[in-house]
Amino acid sequence: MPRAVAGPEIERLIQLIARLPGLGPRSARRVALHLIKKREALMAPLAAAMTDALGKIVECRRCGNVDVCDPCTICTDTSRDRRTLVVVADVGDLWALERAGVLNAPYHVLGGVLSPLDGVGPEDLNLAKLVTRVHEDEVGEVILALGATVDGQTTAHYITDLLREAHVRVTRLAQGVPVGGELDYLDEGTLSAAIRARTQM
Amino acid sequence: MPRAVAGPEIERLIQLIARLPGLGPRSARRVALHLIKKREALMAPLAAAMTDALGKIVECRRCGNVDVCDPCTICTDTSRDRRTLVVVADVGDLWALERAGVLNAPYHVLGGVLSPLDGVGPEDLNLAKLVTRVHEDEVGEVILALGATVDGQTTAHYITDLLREAHVRVTRLAQGVPVGGELDYLDEGTLSAAIRARTQM
Repeated sequence: MPRAVAGPEIERLIQLIARLPGLGPRSARRVALHLIKKREALMAPLAAAMTDALGKIVECRRCGNVDVCDPCTICTDTSRDRRTLVVVADVGDLWALERAGVLNAPYHVLGGVLSPLDGVGPEDLNLAKLVTRVHEDEVGEVILALGATVDGQTTAHYITDLLREAHVRVTRLAQGVPVGGELDYLDEGTLSAAIRARTQM
Repeated sequence: MPRAVAGPEIERLIQLIARLPGLGPRSARRVALHLIKKREALMAPLAAAMTDALGKIVECRRCGNVDVCDPCTICTDTSRDRRTLVVVADVGDLWALERAGVLNAPYHVLGGVLSPLDGVGPEDLNLAKLVTRVHEDEVGEVILALGATVDGQTTAHYITDLLREAHVRVTRLAQGVPVGGELDYLDEGTLSAAIRARTQM
């Protein structure tokens, strides 16, 4: 155990920063030092922004997104086509799809995917509200934007069964070669899927 | 410009996090989402730790280190050998040397290195106080723990000249093959330095 180089307040700051995703002990120290050096320009506004966000962030009761208002910015956006509903596992997936900018529809955040190994069952996901929304909002198509993992696809099949009575079109994302992908580096599963789902030139 | 996915408070949080070193826009969003999910367990303590540190962090008037007390934890540590003084460019270098745990001496933080290209001259560095300390504290050896860069070595030579009248032993870090380094991957400069400074087996 090395001796303390600085007071407990600085050590605690480093320890908390090290708990952020993608940061190890070394990069946490670099971030802490950067914050200490830019106290007025960065640490003060960041602390204020966090305190501000802490008091305001809520989960949207409608779709499960996180925002500073409930219903969230996306749910209250009247320019979105409500005949489509995009189902995602997580808020991070919602943000990623919004960056792609190809969809103009409201979302429904499940809060995870079914995972027997991790003990995540249907009752742990935001599924009941999904069924209600599909019926109430007269949704025409539900896009299951879930990961191409075993758990993601299991969840997709489960939701498809769940919505069978709703007589709604249920689609999922295409599987194939990612843009910029070289065949040489792709796994057999992706290549098989891409060949099976090949399209006319 | 993509549409706002969330309220301005969340967007601002992401923008500020993206200004931390080593984090791009994508990892900043991941960090922000992690903070939002762990509001009580991580964002609240981190905001509090920052606010706490903001009010307490000061620069040590003696050595230039940053800490929550002045003189700093290291300067007030009576177990350190005051006959040696370790000169570093930056607080980050001080932390790195403390992690190595091989030194038990006080430090002197210059706040940078001489760099004509970046317009950093002797008057921009914490040099006057260094000369005063060397004289007043009856220092026997000054270790110049500066980077093996052109600017670092220029600064080392400048300080050596500056301390010539103080009749103090001035040393610098050894240059050579880093621990774990393979010769094949090392540059010619490092190899030349390692051969010139070779030691008896």
